[in-house]
Amino acid sequence: MPVSPGQTLRELRERKPLVHQITNYVVMNETANATLALGALPVMAHAPQEVEEMAAIAGALVLNIGTLSEHWIEAMLLAGRAAAGPIVLDPVGVGATRYRTETAKRLLDELDIAVVRGNAAEIAILAGREAEIRGVESIGAADSGGELARAAGRLLGTVAAVTGSTDHISDGERVIAVSNGHELLGTVSGTGCMATAVTGAFLAVKPGEPLEAAAEALVAFGVAGDDAARDAKGPGTFHAALYDALYNLDPATLDERARIDE
Amino acid sequence: MPVSPGQTLRELRERKPLVHQITNYVVMNETANATLALGALPVMAHAPQEVEEMAAIAGALVLNIGTLSEHWIEAMLLAGRAAAGPIVLDPVGVGATRYRTETAKRLLDELDIAVVRGNAAEIAILAGREAEIRGVESIGAADSGGELARAAGRLLGTVAAVTGSTDHISDGERVIAVSNGHELLGTVSGTGCMATAVTGAFLAVKPGEPLEAAAEALVAFGVAGDDAARDAKGPGTFHAALYDALYNLDPATLDERARIDE
Amino acid sequence: MPVSPGQTLRELRERKPLVHQITNYVVMNETANATLALGALPVMAHAPQEVEEMAAIAGALVLNIGTLSEHWIEAMLLAGRAAAGPIVLDPVGVGATRYRTETAKRLLDELDIAVVRGNAAEIAILAGREAEIRGVESIGAADSGGELARAAGRLLGTVAAVTGSTDHISDGERVIAVSNGHELLGTVSGTGCMATAVTGAFLAVKPGEPLEAAAEALVAFGVAGDDAARDAKGPGTFHAALYDALYNLDPATLDERARIDE
Repeated sequence: MPVSPGQTLRELRERKPLVHQITNYVVMNETANATLALGALPVMAHAPQEVEEMAAIAGALVLNIGTLSEHWIEAMLLAGRAAAGPIVLDPVGVGATRYRTETAKRLLDELDIAVVRGNAAEIAILAGREAEIRGVESIGAADSGGELARAAGRLLGTVAAVTGSTDHISDGERVIAVSNGHELLGTVSGTGCMATAVTGAFLAVKPGEPLEAAAEALVAFGVAGDDAARDAKGPGTFHAALYDALYNLDPATLDERARIDE
Repeated sequence: MPVSPGQTLRELRERKPLVHQITNYVVMNETANATLALGALPVMAHAPQEVEEMAAIAGALVLNIGTLSEHWIEAMLLAGRAAAGPIVLDPVGVGATRYRTETAKRLLDELDIAVVRGNAAEIAILAGREAEIRGVESIGAADSGGELARAAGRLLGTVAAVTGSTDHISDGERVIAVSNGHELLGTVSGTGCMATAVTGAFLAVKPGEPLEAAAEALVAFGVAGDDAARDAKGPGTFHAALYDALYNLDPATLDERARIDE
Repeated sequence: MPVSPGQTLRELRERKPLVHQITNYVVMNETANATLALGALPVMAHAPQEVEEMAAIAGALVLNIGTLSEHWIEAMLLAGRAAAGPIVLDPVGVGATRYRTETAKRLLDELDIAVVRGNAAEIAILAGREAEIRGVESIGAADSGGELARAAGRLLGTVAAVTGSTDHISDGERVIAVSNGHELLGTVSGTGCMATAVTGAFLAVKPGEPLEAAAEALVAFGVAGDDAARDAKGPGTFHAALYDALYNLDPATLDERARIDE
């Protein structure tokens, strides 16, 4: 199936899919704004009384374990079982505490996760590989991104997206490398979470092709990062410019700007 | 009673009223910053142990159901019953789930709400009219904004403020239309919630005139939106400029910049 | 012991200490981004299942009572007892409600707090002095900042940092005054909380010298505030520029830019 971020973005802006996000307190505003700037519609809801209803009308569900607690895990499970669209998991800080590791594994076990997106250490830990994490920051992983994505995809039975200076996305067989993006993305808290939300929005448009959708989402987010860096003077002006860049992404030039290797 | 956003803003900046907000996780920072930039003092508090005490010293109370859960509803009810000043309700996402609809109706039934501010679909659903909502976004409502505001004001016994490209504010009899504002407001998550917080700040200054205070608040917020759009390159730079614009609002020119029809 | 913000910042950027923050919903993104822009690594975690593990691997722990509830207080106590590094307390809104005052006192009683950082009213109330607070804003305190910091440091057995147009930091004996900073800091919600997070990051580098570390942190944050104000047009552009300025802080010139009196 072809990878065409431009075409998928065009459809996304026409359809404006609803992306239900049960995410962490730190980045809620940021992922909502990234989703909206891109052209999709974010909604945050976590009460057990409403998550099933919301997940059932959403085009995709994004689960993010960045600030866990018991009620939120229950909400994620309820929403995940009721979700009408594909589910993306962001295993923030997996490996930093047992609670995060167990929760991410439980979500992967009990739900039908389409894509798991994390940094190298997070994905390595889920794949049973060696890695070092400090809080939510990947310090290093033994495997290269491509090997890691393939191994995780195979073991977890999902698409695994390992983001870094180059992103690697794999369904356990094919591996797509995406080299768009800018190092300033690493200086703003929550850009990984935004990449996950954007992945959810792309998945809502092509739910049957999670590998392609995830790669396209990371192309789009990376190109926006490149654009945002152009006049940025640091993390603050970059952060503001990132929403401008997502909003101004041009579907007509996105395919040619994609730096994809397969 | 005259509508004079300039005069009310001048008084607001002199008195610096405390605006107690029990609001959603997504926009807390944004509504706090909008309140502060305008010249009032925001405070967030939701623990049952302190909400009554806080609401009793605040000039206004803002309730927003954007990310509901049981404990927060209890806090809203406790605070609402103890509030010394007027209460504004933002029924975020009403109609998207039964839980939101029931909760908004319960707050309207059990508390003395002065103003309810929402988009066309949210207000239409509260008024028992036909409307379509996707997550928290109004897709459409059968009635025009003016009719809707009047019908909601009459049915709910509050002032109803329906915001959109033109805002309509009504107490069930009079209808005031405000045409300030800019379409970029729709590209940033939480601008509706900010408009509600600003409404709370204006209400704290003239609690006895909720229709006028709500209209003045929407003029002020809309003018700030216009100013912020001037050099914005998209949602991110617009968002940053919006706080600058609220901070730099000039009471001396606000009345003549108001685009009000009655 | 010498006060050298430049040297400590240099070490901070080399070591990238993990700063575990249990803080309020309003400012989580802001304190995470300030920590990251400075060069340290933020992590937010509040579940009782993981706070002890996280606090035990972190270089410092930041506790902030801005949006309290029972579960969060329990988490703060668990984390505080397990913390491997020094603890900073931000008593947001102490004096506004009994619940905040009691909670701050309980944390000071039960935990080994290294530094408490607040505005004049907050510190005065903890020190049993007269003061007026409106929500979370200091309206006034009977004592001067220097006297207040000394009295609080002595009474509480911690370092007390009273921030304002001039900051005063004292261990109950020595008093250090820091006059860096800009009045625009007062127009953005959460800049006090950011100053506390930055204090945590500096403390992680020199845990044995809390007086010096706190003074250095306030120099660094104040210089960043000065830099951010240069081209700011109001609170929004100032806020974005503040992260740029923290990121671009130059250790080589920080000592000579410090405006310290002792």
